[in-house]
Amino acid sequence: MRVLVPFGARDPKSRLSSVFSPSERRDLAEAMLDDVLAALSDHEPVVVANAPVDAAAPTRVDDRPLTTAVNARLGEGPTAVVMADLPLVRGETITRLLDTEGDVVVAPGLGGGTNALVVRHPEFETDYHGVSVRDHRERARAVGATVSTVDSYRLGVDIDEPADLVEVLLHGDGKTTGWLREHGGRVETTDGRTRFRRDGRD
Amino acid sequence: MRVLVPFGARDPKSRLSSVFSPSERRDLAEAMLDDVLAALSDHEPVVVANAPVDAAAPTRVDDRPLTTAVNARLGEGPTAVVMADLPLVRGETITRLLDTEGDVVVAPGLGGGTNALVVRHPEFETDYHGVSVRDHRERARAVGATVSTVDSYRLGVDIDEPADLVEVLLHGDGKTTGWLREHGGRVETTDGRTRFRRDGRD
Repeated sequence: MRVLVPFGARDPKSRLSSVFSPSERRDLAEAMLDDVLAALSDHEPVVVANAPVDAAAPTRVDDRPLTTAVNARLGEGPTAVVMADLPLVRGETITRLLDTEGDVVVAPGLGGGTNALVVRHPEFETDYHGVSVRDHRERARAVGATVSTVDSYRLGVDIDEPADLVEVLLHGDGKTTGWLREHGGRVETTDGRTRFRRDGRD
Repeated sequence: MRVLVPFGARDPKSRLSSVFSPSERRDLAEAMLDDVLAALSDHEPVVVANAPVDAAAPTRVDDRPLTTAVNARLGEGPTAVVMADLPLVRGETITRLLDTEGDVVVAPGLGGGTNALVVRHPEFETDYHGVSVRDHRERARAVGATVSTVDSYRLGVDIDEPADLVEVLLHGDGKTTGWLREHGGRVETTDGRTRFRRDGRD
């Protein structure tokens, strides 16, 4: 199946600026993109980026807002949309996503996001603003499309905030995990959840 | 399968004290327990609580630390351990958990926790301190048990911190969701992830 991988190439991962410099955030975002593309290697990923990026897959530069750029590429047969900041995703996770039946398949992300979609209905359009997981379900129903959900932790954990980084150290095994370790990342235990901690600078 | 549901009945959910009073946190914790027990209705849940609680399942009061109280009940045939603060869990989620093969099956929780376990090996013991998901994998290997993981968002999102509450409003459909709505809970959109917001007081 054709799989779109939107990539925000301008000042990526700005909510991690308390932990990493702009150039580090760029490297981290590209490591995550590489991990997602590796998980998609049995499929046909196309990166849709808002600025040029050197990716291991065909890349289309489209500087329109995310929602517009994705919608311009829907409607020509079944298409999946998988976000580029999901470094826990593996090939088996993608198989589960693509094997899930439904005109529209949604993989929720933390905090109301939509981390992955499968679109098999010609009239469905995305809307990544606001509470997108709720909006996508409503839009699907509005065009008469059946909706199903993939219950996946690996798809659900997108890396946006410092607290997310610990998940990569605990559950990742790709480039992103290696990059974080090389840049001083470690797991700090607390009374509650573990936290990401960065040691030193290199 | 026998399923243990540990419940911390003393000052529950203390990390939600910025949002709810002690008696509200108690009510919220009991609503979450009810939702988990409802998802377990096809099985044999036993609540293991560190103080008396009025639950819709057989309850054992055991005031020892969580790890000790759980380990005292392992070893007599296959046993699952499902945390009481997983209000997104449904019957189908439990089916996936219990159908996963392996001497030890782990469902990771946010921040390194172990939100659910299936134990089919007589020598495996739990350790809920520290980075429990990592420790449980290591302990399983140390006793020669095979380990597998359930990739589930509904099992992965435990409700510990204010940011978690929005997940219940977005993806829950049980008592906990109703309770939060009745107590002023709503979804607030932001530039990033949505947030839980509490309106007024009742």
